[in-house]
Amino acid sequence: MTEVVDRPAGKGPRPAAGRTGAANPAGGQPAVDVAALGEQLLGKWAGVRLQARGLAARPELHKTEGLTHSDHRTRTFSQLKYLVDNEAVHRAFPAALGGSDDHGGNIAGFEELVTADPSLQIKAGVQWGLFGSAVMHLGTEEHHAKWLPGIMSLDIPGCFAMTETGHGSDVASIATTATYDAGTQEFVVHTPFRAAWKDYIGNAAIDGLGAVVFAQLVTKGINHGVHAFYVDLRDPETKEFLPGIGGEDDGVKGGLNGIDNGRLHFNNVRIPRSNLLNRYGKVASDGTYTSPIASPGRRFFTMLGTLVQGRVSLDGAAVAASKIALTAAIRYATERKQFNASSHTDEEVLLDYQRHQRRLFTRLATTYAAGFAHEQLLQKFDDVFSGAQDTDEDRQDLETLAAALKPLSTWHALDTLQECREACGGAGFLIENRFASLRADLDIYVTFEGDNTVLLQLVAKRLLADYAKEFRNVDFGVLARYVVGQARGVAIHRTGLRQVAQFVADTGSVQKAALALRDEESQRALLTDRVQTMVAEVGAALKGANRLPQEQGAALFNQHQNELIEAAQAHAELLQWEAFTEALRDTSDPGTKTVLTWLRDLFGLSLIEKNLAWYLMNGRLSMQRGRTVGQYINRLLVKIRPRALDLVDAFGYGEDHIRAAIATGAEKARQDEARAYMRSQRANGQAPVEEKVLLARTSAAAAAHAKASVTPGSARR
Amino acid sequence: MTEVVDRPAGKGPRPAAGRTGAANPAGGQPAVDVAALGEQLLGKWAGVRLQARGLAARPELHKTEGLTHSDHRTRTFSQLKYLVDNEAVHRAFPAALGGSDDHGGNIAGFEELVTADPSLQIKAGVQWGLFGSAVMHLGTEEHHAKWLPGIMSLDIPGCFAMTETGHGSDVASIATTATYDAGTQEFVVHTPFRAAWKDYIGNAAIDGLGAVVFAQLVTKGINHGVHAFYVDLRDPETKEFLPGIGGEDDGVKGGLNGIDNGRLHFNNVRIPRSNLLNRYGKVASDGTYTSPIASPGRRFFTMLGTLVQGRVSLDGAAVAASKIALTAAIRYATERKQFNASSHTDEEVLLDYQRHQRRLFTRLATTYAAGFAHEQLLQKFDDVFSGAQDTDEDRQDLETLAAALKPLSTWHALDTLQECREACGGAGFLIENRFASLRADLDIYVTFEGDNTVLLQLVAKRLLADYAKEFRNVDFGVLARYVVGQARGVAIHRTGLRQVAQFVADTGSVQKAALALRDEESQRALLTDRVQTMVAEVGAALKGANRLPQEQGAALFNQHQNELIEAAQAHAELLQWEAFTEALRDTSDPGTKTVLTWLRDLFGLSLIEKNLAWYLMNGRLSMQRGRTVGQYINRLLVKIRPRALDLVDAFGYGEDHIRAAIATGAEKARQDEARAYMRSQRANGQAPVEEKVLLARTSAAAAAHAKASVTPGSARR
Repeated sequence: MTEVVDRPAGKGPRPAAGRTGAANPAGGQPAVDVAALGEQLLGKWAGVRLQARGLAARPELHKTEGLTHSDHRTRTFSQLKYLVDNEAVHRAFPAALGGSDDHGGNIAGFEELVTADPSLQIKAGVQWGLFGSAVMHLGTEEHHAKWLPGIMSLDIPGCFAMTETGHGSDVASIATTATYDAGTQEFVVHTPFRAAWKDYIGNAAIDGLGAVVFAQLVTKGINHGVHAFYVDLRDPETKEFLPGIGGEDDGVKGGLNGIDNGRLHFNNVRIPRSNLLNRYGKVASDGTYTSPIASPGRRFFTMLGTLVQGRVSLDGAAVAASKIALTAAIRYATERKQFNASSHTDEEVLLDYQRHQRRLFTRLATTYAAGFAHEQLLQKFDDVFSGAQDTDEDRQDLETLAAALKPLSTWHALDTLQECREACGGAGFLIENRFASLRADLDIYVTFEGDNTVLLQLVAKRLLADYAKEFRNVDFGVLARYVVGQARGVAIHRTGLRQVAQFVADTGSVQKAALALRDEESQRALLTDRVQTMVAEVGAALKGANRLPQEQGAALFNQHQNELIEAAQAHAELLQWEAFTEALRDTSDPGTKTVLTWLRDLFGLSLIEKNLAWYLMNGRLSMQRGRTVGQYINRLLVKIRPRALDLVDAFGYGEDHIRAAIATGAEKARQDEARAYMRSQRANGQAPVEEKVLLARTSAAAAAHAKASVTPGSARR
Repeated sequence: MTEVVDRPAGKGPRPAAGRTGAANPAGGQPAVDVAALGEQLLGKWAGVRLQARGLAARPELHKTEGLTHSDHRTRTFSQLKYLVDNEAVHRAFPAALGGSDDHGGNIAGFEELVTADPSLQIKAGVQWGLFGSAVMHLGTEEHHAKWLPGIMSLDIPGCFAMTETGHGSDVASIATTATYDAGTQEFVVHTPFRAAWKDYIGNAAIDGLGAVVFAQLVTKGINHGVHAFYVDLRDPETKEFLPGIGGEDDGVKGGLNGIDNGRLHFNNVRIPRSNLLNRYGKVASDGTYTSPIASPGRRFFTMLGTLVQGRVSLDGAAVAASKIALTAAIRYATERKQFNASSHTDEEVLLDYQRHQRRLFTRLATTYAAGFAHEQLLQKFDDVFSGAQDTDEDRQDLETLAAALKPLSTWHALDTLQECREACGGAGFLIENRFASLRADLDIYVTFEGDNTVLLQLVAKRLLADYAKEFRNVDFGVLARYVVGQARGVAIHRTGLRQVAQFVADTGSVQKAALALRDEESQRALLTDRVQTMVAEVGAALKGANRLPQEQGAALFNQHQNELIEAAQAHAELLQWEAFTEALRDTSDPGTKTVLTWLRDLFGLSLIEKNLAWYLMNGRLSMQRGRTVGQYINRLLVKIRPRALDLVDAFGYGEDHIRAAIATGAEKARQDEARAYMRSQRANGQAPVEEKVLLARTSAAAAAHAKASVTPGSARR
C-alpha cells in the first residue's frame, strides 16, 4: 500500500490554506480517511473518551487564566464537584458502591480532562486516583464501606501523604513512623524530624480532611516497613488541623496552581488500630504482625504497585496535550506567511518551509508513536487491574512498560509544547494560545509519579536482569556465539518488552538491510540491534559488579550510568516504534495507511538520525548510507506536508478543546482583508509608488537615455 | 599548566558537602582562585556590573511571585521609578542630558537586572532601550531636547511600536502608513486593516503616553519606506487614548507579566511634520523627501541598526539567568542524597552521579563559553556605538555576531533553567526556588528582538555571502585546490567572525590532530572544519540559485534551509569556543587555568559529541576515535566534580540574587538533624529492628541450627 513512496520528491500540490477535506485528495496524492483514522486513535475506550471530551469541552471546566493561585484553587475544587455531579470519576470504584470496576476506562476518561485544565485533572487524580485508590487497593471491605462513599462524593477531600522532604524517589526510606500501642489499641503517627515532613502533597494546604499516610509500621519493637494508614487531618466544620497535626502551604508553583500542595507533620497523633489499611499487613490487638506476603521487599513493591496507574495516566495525558499543541500550531502554520505577501513567494506559508516542517512533523510523528504505545500500555494496565492477566510477571511487565513510556511521552510533551509555542512566535507566548499555559502545567509531569531519570534506571535494571538471567553461567565466548546465531525477527513479546537475548550481531545482514532505510524490517533491525548491543555492552562491563565490595560495585555502576539510561531510552523508543508499526496493520484504508507509513518512517528515521553516530561507529550503517538519512527525512517532510492538516484533524479535538485564538482561521481572515485592501488601492490608483521601484525606473530611463545619446555619437565617430 | 590532565581518572577526593574554599584544595587537585576568576568573569564593565548587582539585590526590585498580572504590572512600573531615582538607567544617554554616553556599560548594567525580575529588566528595556533609544538614535537635537528628559525621568512612559500582527520578523512589510499632508504640514498616521495593528507592544496596554511608531512614509505619492514617528498616545491626565487611537490589552502571557503588552491602531491620526524622527530622512514643508542615505535598502537597515542593542542585552541576560540557575542546582546537588543515608552509598550526593554531572557540568561549560562570547560581543557593541570602530563593516560584523550569539544563549538559558529545575525534582517546581519563574519569563527571549530561527538564517546568509565574495568567478576545481592549500590557524578575525575561506580540507591532518581530542588545536580544527565544509557544501548546492526563476530559486533554497541553519549554529558554537579559548589566555592562576581548560574541553568535546555523526561521515574522525569522545567527557566530569562549587561561586552572585530556598544549606541542616536523631535512637536502644534484618538473622540462626542438627547425624551415619 505504499506504492507512491518512491515517487521523486517535489513540492507537490498544496491544499488551500485552512481546512482540506480528506475526501478531496489533491492530484493523485493519497488521501487520509480522517474519520476512520480518528476512530482508530480513540482506541478501545472510544466511548469513554468521547464522553470525557464532551465534558472537557464545557466552559465550566476550562482553566481561567491569570487567576491568583488562591482563586484558581477555589475554582478547581468546585470543578471537582462538577465532575462528581456529572459521574465522570467513579469508573474504577466497585460497582457495589456506585462505580463500574472499569480500570482502563477510568484512566482513559481521566486523561482527556487535561484538555480542560491540567490542575483539574491532577487534583482529580489526587482525590480519586491516589487517595481513593489507596483506600480501595490497600484497604479491606470495612475501610471501603467507611470511607469510599465520602471520597467518591468529595465529602472527604483527601491526601496521598507519601513523599517526604528528605526522600523523593526513595519511598522505602521515609521516616514517618506509626508505632502500635497495644495498651490503647492505637497507632501513634509521628514525624521525628523536619526532613520527614510530608511534602508536595496535593489537597494538603487547604482542602484535605483526611489522608492516607505512609509510615514505617512499628510493633513490638520491630519495623515491618512502609504501610498505609488512614488519618483524619482537619475538623470538617472549622477546617482547622486536628490536634498534633500541622503543615505548611507549598505556595505558588511553576504550574498546576489549581492544586493546593502542601506539607504535613504529625506529633504523636493517635489513630485507631483499624485505620491501618491492612490488605497486605495486619496487626492483631496484642500487636502481633501478620502478612499474606512473607517477604518485606515483595510486600513493599506490591503495595506500591497501585502507583502505576498514575504513570499510565500521565503517559496518556502527555500525549493528549501534545495533540492539542500540534493541532493549533499546524493549523496556524498553514495560514501564516512569514514574509511580505507582495514578494515572489506569495503563497508560501510557514508550513512550506523545510525547517518548520522538520520542527512540527517530527514531533507529529512522535506523538502518533507515543499515542499508539500508550494504547498498548493502557490495555496492559486494564488486563492486570481487571484481573484478566494478573500474574507477577504481568505486573512486572506493566511496571517496566509504564516506567519506559512515561518518561518519553512527558518529555516529548514539554518539547512539543515549547516548539509549537516558538513556531507561533510572539503569538505563541500569549496565554490565549495556551502553549505556555499547558507547558507550565505539564512541567512537573516529568518528575512526579516517578522522576523520569529514575524510571529509566528502573527500566535499565530490568533489561540488565533479563540479560543476566538469560546468560547466567555462560562464559563470554559462548555468549558471543549464541548471540550471533540468533535469527532476526524473533516473535515479539506482546507486552512490548523486548527480549534482550534476541541479539542481532550479524552486522553484515543489518548493513545490507539498511540499503533500504524506509523498509520496515530494516528500521526494526537497526533499532532493536542498538538496544540489544547497548544492554549487552553495559552488561559485560558490569559483569561481576555484584561480587565487588559494595563501594567499588557502586562506583563501577556509576561509571556506566549514562549508558544505562541511554539504553533504557533506546528500548522505550523501540517500544513506541513497534506500537506504531502494529497500528499500521490495523489501518485498512490504503491512502491512510500510506500516509501513516510515511509518518512511521519519519519517526523511525528520526530516531536513527538522532543516534547516527552510534550506528556508524558500530558498523551498522556505512558512511554513505548514513548521509542519506537526513535526505530521506527531508523527502518525507515534503510528502507529509499536503496531509498534515488531516493528521491533526484525526486527533478529533474540537474548538472547545483547542481554544487557541490562532487556530480559528483569524489569521487567514486578516490576510484576506489586507489583500482586498491592497487590491482596491491599486484599482483606485491610490497606492503610492515605492521609492525603490521609482529609483529602478529612473535609473533604467537614465541608462536608456545615456545609451540613446551615446550611440549616435559613437556612430558619428 | 595542564600537568594533571593526564592523570588516570578516578573519583578523587570530594569536598565536604557545602562550600569549599579554593584556598583549601583537596589532595593535590588544582585549586580555583575564585576571587580572581570572579573578576575575570565580571569583564570590562566590572564596576557597573557590581553597582547594578547591588541594586538588583534590593528587595524593592525583586519579583513578587503569585501576583495577578495587573498587580505585577503596577509593581513593575513603580520599580522603574526606583531605577530612575537610583540613577541606574541613563548611562547610554547624552552627557548633556544627564547621561554618560556609555553604551557598553549601559547594557552591562541592564543585563544584571534580570536577577531581580525579568519583567523589570524588559520593561526598562522598552522604556529606555527601545523607546528612548529610538528618539536618541533616529531623532535629531530638537527631538532630544523635547522628549528625552521626560523619557529619562519616566514622565513619558512610551512604546516602541514597530511589530504588527500581520508581520513579525518582516519589518519592511509593515502596513501602517504616515502620509504627509503639505496643506497642514502634518503626517496622517493610519492603520489600514486589522493585520496592521501594532502588536505585543510593551507599555501599550496601560502605561504608554507616547510612542515611536514605525510606518511607511508616503509623500507626494511616493512611499519612502519605513520611518519612525513620535506619536502622543494618551492624555497624561486621564490616561485615555487620544482621538483616533485605539488598542487592546494582550492580556496574560507565558511570562513577563509585569509588562503591559498590547495592541495599537490609528485612524487617520494627525501629527506635526516635526514629529518625524528625521536623522535618516527629512520631509520639507512642501513634501519633498531627502535623505543622507540614497539607497532605500541601506537606509532601512541603518535605521534598524539600533535594534542590535536589544539582542546584545538579551544575550547577556540569558547568560546571567543560566548562572543563577546553575548556582542553585549545583549547590543543592552537593547536599542532596538521592537514596537512603543508611545504604552503602552513604556519602553519595546527587552531584556524584555521572548522569547528574553530565546534566549540570555540560551546561556549566556552555554557560562559561556563552559568557566569554558575550563579553566579546559587548565590547564590539561598545566599539561601534561609541564611534571608536564604526565602519559599515564593523556594524555588519556586530549585527552578525549578535544574530549568531543571541539564539544560542537564549535557547541555552531555557534548556539550563529546565534541566536545573528537573535536577532538583519536585523542589525545583516550587516558585520559591525560581527555576520555573525565570524559565517562564525568559521563554519569549528566544523569539523576540529577532526570532532565533530567523536570526540564524541571517547569519547563514552572511556566511554564504562571504563565501560567494571569496570565490566569485572561480570555478569549483580551482576552489577545491585553493581550499586545500589553506593553512590551518590563519589569524583569527578579532570580532570573532570566521573567514569561511579558511577552508581546512586537509582531512588527513585533521584526523591526525584528532588523535588528541583534548588538544586545543585539534578541537579548533574539528569545529572550524565543520563550519567551513557545511558552508561550502550549501554554497555549492545553491550555486546559480540567483539565476533561476524566482520560484525555483526559492524552492532550491528551501531544500537546504535546515542545513543552512545548522551551519549558522555551528558557526556560532565555534565563536563561543574561540571566546572561551581566548579567555584561557587571560587566566593567569595555574590551578584556575587547569580547571577552566577542563571546562573548555568539556564544551568543545560536547559539541563534537553532539555532531559526531557528521565528523564520522565526513571522515574527520575515525570510528575508533569517535568512541573515545564519550569516554573522555566522562573523565572530564569526574575531574571537574571537586571544583564545581568554585566554578559557580566565581559567578559572584549572592543569596539576594540566587534567592532559592534549596541553595541555602537548608537541605544539609535537615540531613544533619535526621542523622543526629537516628544516632540518638540507636544510642538509646529505641530504634526498632527492621523486619528484614530480623528475618535474615532468624534464617541464619535456623540454618546454623539445621547445620548443627544435621552434621552430627551425618557423622553418625
